[in-house]
Amino acid sequence: MKITAVIMAGGRGERFWPKSRNSRPKQFLSLTADGETMIQKTVNRLLPIVEYEDIFIVTNAAYIGLVKEQLPGIPEENILAEPCARNTAPCIAFAAAVIGRKYDDAVMLVLPSDHLIGFEDMYISTLKKAVDVSLEGKNLVTIGITPNYPETGYGYINFGEECGSAYKVKRFVEKPDLPTAKEYLASGKYLWNSGMFVWKISSVMANLKEFMPGIYEGAIRIGEAFGSSGFEEVLVREFSAFTSESIDFGIMEKASDIYTIPGNFGWDDVGSWLAVERINEVDDSKNYIEGNVISIGSERATICGGKRLIAAVGVEDIIIVDTDDAVLICSKNNTQDVKKVIAQLKESGRNELV
Amino acid sequence: MKITAVIMAGGRGERFWPKSRNSRPKQFLSLTADGETMIQKTVNRLLPIVEYEDIFIVTNAAYIGLVKEQLPGIPEENILAEPCARNTAPCIAFAAAVIGRKYDDAVMLVLPSDHLIGFEDMYISTLKKAVDVSLEGKNLVTIGITPNYPETGYGYINFGEECGSAYKVKRFVEKPDLPTAKEYLASGKYLWNSGMFVWKISSVMANLKEFMPGIYEGAIRIGEAFGSSGFEEVLVREFSAFTSESIDFGIMEKASDIYTIPGNFGWDDVGSWLAVERINEVDDSKNYIEGNVISIGSERATICGGKRLIAAVGVEDIIIVDTDDAVLICSKNNTQDVKKVIAQLKESGRNELV
Repeated sequence: MKITAVIMAGGRGERFWPKSRNSRPKQFLSLTADGETMIQKTVNRLLPIVEYEDIFIVTNAAYIGLVKEQLPGIPEENILAEPCARNTAPCIAFAAAVIGRKYDDAVMLVLPSDHLIGFEDMYISTLKKAVDVSLEGKNLVTIGITPNYPETGYGYINFGEECGSAYKVKRFVEKPDLPTAKEYLASGKYLWNSGMFVWKISSVMANLKEFMPGIYEGAIRIGEAFGSSGFEEVLVREFSAFTSESIDFGIMEKASDIYTIPGNFGWDDVGSWLAVERINEVDDSKNYIEGNVISIGSERATICGGKRLIAAVGVEDIIIVDTDDAVLICSKNNTQDVKKVIAQLKESGRNELV
Repeated sequence: MKITAVIMAGGRGERFWPKSRNSRPKQFLSLTADGETMIQKTVNRLLPIVEYEDIFIVTNAAYIGLVKEQLPGIPEENILAEPCARNTAPCIAFAAAVIGRKYDDAVMLVLPSDHLIGFEDMYISTLKKAVDVSLEGKNLVTIGITPNYPETGYGYINFGEECGSAYKVKRFVEKPDLPTAKEYLASGKYLWNSGMFVWKISSVMANLKEFMPGIYEGAIRIGEAFGSSGFEEVLVREFSAFTSESIDFGIMEKASDIYTIPGNFGWDDVGSWLAVERINEVDDSKNYIEGNVISIGSERATICGGKRLIAAVGVEDIIIVDTDDAVLICSKNNTQDVKKVIAQLKESGRNELV
């Protein structure tokens, strides 16, 4: 059976402001010294098991140009434009319907566009195991990440008995508080929910039909119209009517036949500016510095220079990011508050900076 | 006897980079919310005792345009252009010779151009006392500042017996280490050396003749040529030949008849970016913020925004200064290291940023 991949690339990536903007979110940025963007890395690392013509990018209509520019190898008909943001369940249903039109049935890898993988061979080997498990019955497979510390920013997957190379999923749990996260870690029965899924088109459609019948029926109509002159009209009508729902809440927390494969391939969700020093090399003072920067006695600083000179003198545990029209100076303890800057900009009508 | 003032405005003000540049040093900047520049404030606060036509500005030839622009009330012939930097003794000798040509004898207030005074009435009253003391004999008067903490960045004046409203100076001492500064403060016999002097032209010339005869003779020749067509040539030749020397070392540490008047008029030398929060109002979180800035949870930060947006998130005890081509982010503990940035810029030939 064909192996296809659906890369979800509709996110806004507000936590990487001011580099990420509405007009160019995180997945279209390079945050590593090699200059490759996140979505380019996502596609390139899949090529050992998925061909270009079987890779589908689902993104906001506004980003079609960026996708074409950054991924010229992806066929144009594989770039699926969401008319509006509706979370992951409608996104996946849309892609599944389109792929279902192309192939009778197929395996579908569902992957975020903005994560990093340290060990790509292990990643491919994990995906292959997931493909094998997905081929049996109506199985839905999720890649769980072996946790190495009690992160409170991710959902967790509680798994039960071993079934071949996978584990039966007992339940998905929301982001825990720190004591709970510590219990999860100590129990050895929890994985991080990475948002990567593997299943057959037929399996996910059957589950959509059961648990999200409205989205299922809309997706079928979108799939039937795909390639016809009326497609755009059908897509806008049906997709806009979808409820905004995550695939986790809509299906994964309700379906049976859910399996997880533990992944241990150097996954990083690159969730905030703090990631930059993790995913790049730092100097002897633990600084990561790029671009037009003079640093005098700074320590543990992440500094991304732009056109103008950034002079950082004696600063510690700080993130500095320069762009043409805005510069961020953020304590490492407050990287989540970057969203508050965006909220203030919106409130004051300064949308050109958002 | 006429009261004249000589304002020394040749400094580079490197500690206020990136706002201060070689092309516009600190005395020509406004560092207060009222928008007045330091030199404008210096001149305006003198007007109760000195007339415009008796105020002389000694500055580097490169800054003549700035002086004319910022101080249109000062007669053009009172703007004295140093052909090169030679510290305070040659500067004062040059001005004394020129004023000596204009008036037979006169009182001369010698004042820095880049300090702030909180209580201007008290300042004027202190200067008046100094004028009175200067009129007796060959007296040289220096304004000492009553210290309120053991500052190690200033020189001190050790005074002895009281003579009217002044005290006889025992000696000038260099910047002390902290234990010594604490002893000075506890003794009640030391004042800060503010670099403000009051004397008659005849007194300072007599002392120059005695202790710095080379500079004295050169200054006489400069004074004789003043107003003639050959002045520029004489000035360049004589001034360039002067040794670079401070008036403190050249005269004050050697002469007798030195008196000091304690000043207690809210003096601030505005010595580094740390001064900005002292001389301006701060908000409830002890921030001083001006210009194009969004601050989220910052504390004790001094932020001077420019054209681009500065977003400061959760930063503390920091100084951020934006300009068109450079932005400084500096820990409050390291403000003296701003000079190291300038040194690096010079080393790497980036003189357009200096």
